[in-house]
Amino acid sequence: MSNFMSENYLLESPLAVRLYNDYCKGLPIVDYHCHLSPKEIAEDKHFENITRLWLCENNFGDHYKWRMMRGCGVPEKYITGDGDDKEKFHYWAKTLERSIGNPVYSFTHLELQRYFGIYEPLCEKTWEAIWEKCNEKLKDPKFSTKNLIMDSNVTLVCTTDDPADSLEYHKIIKEDKNFTTKVLPAYRPDKAMNITDPNWKSYIKTLEAAAGMTINSYATLIEALKKRVAFFNEMGCRASDHALVTVKALKATPEELEAIIAKRFNDEPITDDENTKFICAFLKEHAKEYVKYGWGMQLHYGAIRNVNSNMYGKLGPDTGYDAINSLSSTSTVAAFLDLLNEEDILPKTIIYSLNPVDNAAIVTQMSAFQKDVQGKIQQGSAWWFNDHKKGIIDQMTTLASDGILGNFVGMLTDSRSFLSYPRHEYFRRIMVNLIADYVNKGEYPEDEDALKMLIHDISYNNVVGYFNFPVEKV
Amino acid sequence: MSNFMSENYLLESPLAVRLYNDYCKGLPIVDYHCHLSPKEIAEDKHFENITRLWLCENNFGDHYKWRMMRGCGVPEKYITGDGDDKEKFHYWAKTLERSIGNPVYSFTHLELQRYFGIYEPLCEKTWEAIWEKCNEKLKDPKFSTKNLIMDSNVTLVCTTDDPADSLEYHKIIKEDKNFTTKVLPAYRPDKAMNITDPNWKSYIKTLEAAAGMTINSYATLIEALKKRVAFFNEMGCRASDHALVTVKALKATPEELEAIIAKRFNDEPITDDENTKFICAFLKEHAKEYVKYGWGMQLHYGAIRNVNSNMYGKLGPDTGYDAINSLSSTSTVAAFLDLLNEEDILPKTIIYSLNPVDNAAIVTQMSAFQKDVQGKIQQGSAWWFNDHKKGIIDQMTTLASDGILGNFVGMLTDSRSFLSYPRHEYFRRIMVNLIADYVNKGEYPEDEDALKMLIHDISYNNVVGYFNFPVEKV
Amino acid sequence: MSNFMSENYLLESPLAVRLYNDYCKGLPIVDYHCHLSPKEIAEDKHFENITRLWLCENNFGDHYKWRMMRGCGVPEKYITGDGDDKEKFHYWAKTLERSIGNPVYSFTHLELQRYFGIYEPLCEKTWEAIWEKCNEKLKDPKFSTKNLIMDSNVTLVCTTDDPADSLEYHKIIKEDKNFTTKVLPAYRPDKAMNITDPNWKSYIKTLEAAAGMTINSYATLIEALKKRVAFFNEMGCRASDHALVTVKALKATPEELEAIIAKRFNDEPITDDENTKFICAFLKEHAKEYVKYGWGMQLHYGAIRNVNSNMYGKLGPDTGYDAINSLSSTSTVAAFLDLLNEEDILPKTIIYSLNPVDNAAIVTQMSAFQKDVQGKIQQGSAWWFNDHKKGIIDQMTTLASDGILGNFVGMLTDSRSFLSYPRHEYFRRIMVNLIADYVNKGEYPEDEDALKMLIHDISYNNVVGYFNFPVEKV
Repeated sequence: MSNFMSENYLLESPLAVRLYNDYCKGLPIVDYHCHLSPKEIAEDKHFENITRLWLCENNFGDHYKWRMMRGCGVPEKYITGDGDDKEKFHYWAKTLERSIGNPVYSFTHLELQRYFGIYEPLCEKTWEAIWEKCNEKLKDPKFSTKNLIMDSNVTLVCTTDDPADSLEYHKIIKEDKNFTTKVLPAYRPDKAMNITDPNWKSYIKTLEAAAGMTINSYATLIEALKKRVAFFNEMGCRASDHALVTVKALKATPEELEAIIAKRFNDEPITDDENTKFICAFLKEHAKEYVKYGWGMQLHYGAIRNVNSNMYGKLGPDTGYDAINSLSSTSTVAAFLDLLNEEDILPKTIIYSLNPVDNAAIVTQMSAFQKDVQGKIQQGSAWWFNDHKKGIIDQMTTLASDGILGNFVGMLTDSRSFLSYPRHEYFRRIMVNLIADYVNKGEYPEDEDALKMLIHDISYNNVVGYFNFPVEKV
Repeated sequence: MSNFMSENYLLESPLAVRLYNDYCKGLPIVDYHCHLSPKEIAEDKHFENITRLWLCENNFGDHYKWRMMRGCGVPEKYITGDGDDKEKFHYWAKTLERSIGNPVYSFTHLELQRYFGIYEPLCEKTWEAIWEKCNEKLKDPKFSTKNLIMDSNVTLVCTTDDPADSLEYHKIIKEDKNFTTKVLPAYRPDKAMNITDPNWKSYIKTLEAAAGMTINSYATLIEALKKRVAFFNEMGCRASDHALVTVKALKATPEELEAIIAKRFNDEPITDDENTKFICAFLKEHAKEYVKYGWGMQLHYGAIRNVNSNMYGKLGPDTGYDAINSLSSTSTVAAFLDLLNEEDILPKTIIYSLNPVDNAAIVTQMSAFQKDVQGKIQQGSAWWFNDHKKGIIDQMTTLASDGILGNFVGMLTDSRSFLSYPRHEYFRRIMVNLIADYVNKGEYPEDEDALKMLIHDISYNNVVGYFNFPVEKV
Repeated sequence: MSNFMSENYLLESPLAVRLYNDYCKGLPIVDYHCHLSPKEIAEDKHFENITRLWLCENNFGDHYKWRMMRGCGVPEKYITGDGDDKEKFHYWAKTLERSIGNPVYSFTHLELQRYFGIYEPLCEKTWEAIWEKCNEKLKDPKFSTKNLIMDSNVTLVCTTDDPADSLEYHKIIKEDKNFTTKVLPAYRPDKAMNITDPNWKSYIKTLEAAAGMTINSYATLIEALKKRVAFFNEMGCRASDHALVTVKALKATPEELEAIIAKRFNDEPITDDENTKFICAFLKEHAKEYVKYGWGMQLHYGAIRNVNSNMYGKLGPDTGYDAINSLSSTSTVAAFLDLLNEEDILPKTIIYSLNPVDNAAIVTQMSAFQKDVQGKIQQGSAWWFNDHKKGIIDQMTTLASDGILGNFVGMLTDSRSFLSYPRHEYFRRIMVNLIADYVNKGEYPEDEDALKMLIHDISYNNVVGYFNFPVEKV
């Protein structure tokens, strides 16, 4: 058992070990895309026990783990329900034992090692001792949210925020001079974009309040959003994020767009075509702003959401009922980028599909829009259902084969957990091992300067430069 | 040559060898999905020579091998035609020599080793001696169908049967107390479902006779089928199987369904939409029954069938002219499962796509419907065109990465051959090697109890528990 | 650094090294699909410096490299513009340093080694010395186009030619008895097929002149093309090539086809359906001829072209702005092959999709049409965006798993560069390593005769036999 997730975990050659230790270990972290709660940071929250921290608190928690527990037949009572916290933890340990090869198996043990100093596998035999030990440790002040982030050597995180958000917690966080990690907002205007959502009109009320203006037309909607972009920019925002079902290049006149929004205000039905036109225009208006402020634009697609209606009714969104969509949208990405490019409003853009079969298409399509800036168009890191060893290797080798691996902006956690930073370590170990593998196989020279540059860049410097984040490169 | 398919075949590390020998070798086999002929079992058939057993007898045989021979330009006379059996075998040996990396290369030699004690590669140099040796052995009584199955340590097989089948051979098989393997029927009502098939009406006559009732409406069709499900259940059936072009959630009223069937009885054309609605309703009606009897429902898709019209005309179906469909149906699976789940009639379900690019989508979609039962929704093993090392590893690593490998019900042969059981060995060696690989790489601890549990479960216990088969777990 | 692209590059086991040295090293090359300029061969052109040879001359050059440079933010001036050649080379060296894992990294260094005797990595530190050394060598007569081809041990190349081409340079090349490499034309009638192209009518004028007849109908168009096929055949042509957006089986009557062409001559719009019918008929007419002359027909699809409108306007086609199309066309290939097969006009056919996710579907679909000839229907080698180690291995292992690897016609360069032949070496090393891997893992016997046959066949003999090229097998 001495080999289990040991010092050289994921480093499969002496060169990989050496490169990791010399050039990667201990590098700071930028997490440019996550779902941490600014409130929970601002309040420097503590967690009562490891179940609360890891699994579920107030129906909020790690829905990756929930899916796995459901897969093992655990009653919902012990997942999101009112089951006893200790019993929940026991069920989680049993689930984990069957989950060989799942990345959450790795993340769980990296977290036990790095935060709790526990090096045994969590399983039926050990769960109770680990439960006690973790809970004992959680009493320590270093397990507050701020301390967890700082102790993870995180220099900067971007949260995910609605345009209507006051960013009040971001202001509070900034005021704490002892908390050295920069916490920036990221702008995610999905609610404003989803005009077919039944709640759109009530959301618009919220947005009106935030923007301090009336929204009763396409023009005023965009004006309000631009005000919020400007506000987010003042607050340090460097990135936006858009969740899309599909991305299409479908032009519309201003009159058409006004007519579509007028229909929506009148509760008349919107056709698919109208919706697509609106989304395309909406994104274009935003792209202009992103170019102006130098932000990076993130576009995600490839997911189908809330596919289990019954459980959606009971638990709401983000509870473990999303999946990969097998109908790829990638074929239309190039046309959309072309539309922006023709009007000279193509910002730095990061593209993610949740379906890994899109990898090669994305890398080759984005390569047709590279211009002036190193790695202007990026494929996002393997994320969500793909942030496992297989997915990460597949994304990086495809990028290397059809693009420039050295320009990659690297890992994000996409997580709502304060213990998620070892995922950067997980990624970096895989990345360094891959680079070492190229060298071991004679496909790249053992040139120390070049290897150091590549490792530093993919781990940290590329992402800092790409977004122009206010932190120093290493 | 000493290394060729030796004792440690596919076991690439000392740990893999040890785990295989300690926990896997010699485990019994359940083959929950195959196409063996119940008649040929009941009659305890012998085969005249190795060509008859392996390649073709009465235009019936192993169409995997036929495809390969055609790929090498072998005249059809020596594949399915009236060519001499010995010449056919010679052509097969020549074909095999060029087929490096094909799973049939492996299966062929595993069968030579396990059943005939022949350890040389079959090729141009050896074919004639092997022909003689095999034919000599085939005279031995242990090469009867029943003995081949029993000697392969098979405790239970499920054949594939039409609802109109009398299951008379299953009855006869049961009566032979010396034959200790359980042979259960599996229910496959494709002929009743395919209302656009020109032969549907004549099939319905057969079904009427079997069900002992008139079928002249949607309601009576379903009633007849429910009677047959009940009969199959009495006969020990625990699984159904549905071959689908696509799976869609498209609701219809009883009136609509009656109107569709009325059109069919009147030979009026059925629209695609009507067909899809009928299929959806048909599956729903069956799902209800499967829940009632606790059966597992198998859904396959991703194939295009009989794509070579010319050869279909000459040889009929299942002669080597099917292929993978590149138009995935996976995007609609989730919606279909949701439909069943909403009405609380989602049975244990096993999903298979013939296109391996669907793997990640299937695993993530099925994970949204897990509930109460360990591994309630399963992805079926890599099968048909995917039952090779690459396909099996890809399916298992995707399942491990996005689901719970430990809950997997494992291998099926999908075969019509009485020598196909070494495919379970082939699968198990790959599976044990994969598990050892996770341990060797420090991604899972070397915990003997856990490893033994995983290996036993995936090899045997999961499938026994899943279908509640009347055999003991190991 | 001693390991970097050394003698045993890509040969990962002692057996791979031995098999490569014994059976592969030094084999001659047939390059059955390339884009060399017959004029540049006929004129036995020299290149002024390494930038002109490698990157760009007169806006013509290696658009793979251009994409990579754009990905690193290099100004277009130093890619296709009027930047200084030496500076361009410097930018290329910087780009390369970041391109770990890209096949162009490998190709570049193989070319430096094999043609220039330079074994150092090209990078920031070395670029200037390499610039000098290469340019010095380029003065040598052995760096003329003909000498580069001959010295690469190429026995035969097929260029890519328009039906209207006079093939005058092919005639001139033939007359040079000192130039021992055979240079055959390949027939690519895309311009005649693309009736929706605005330039179609002016192209038809050119074709009329070449065919010496009036083209004013579907019948006369086909007649003219048949004359050109006959002429190409006289000139030694053995292969055609068709770039397709999609392949569909959609029949049309002669009257319909005449009506479609009449519309085109009258500048009336053609519907998608009409276009598809025309393409299907056009390919069928050609297929008949190919059967008659024993040619091999190549069908490519899976690309989206000129996706960056802005740069297409500035630089035209083939400048690095194509990509992989995520909408697969593979589902309709089988139906198209079936159409030809039913009419007994299915020629030897090589199918390529640019999207690697189509691999398994292609291999299984093509297997349904194998007949009489060894490997009659082929999957083309991993090409264009797929001609990297990952892509080549994926294509070959899929082919091995679902087809017959031993029948594979192997590598093509698809290149316009006179230094591209080391890509055959790159492919062969990967292929031999794969074969050695099967043997090392005990999946194929270490049978010298069989291994020699497989390696010779995939490297050289299969392609010679398949096209019946006028060169000797080895």
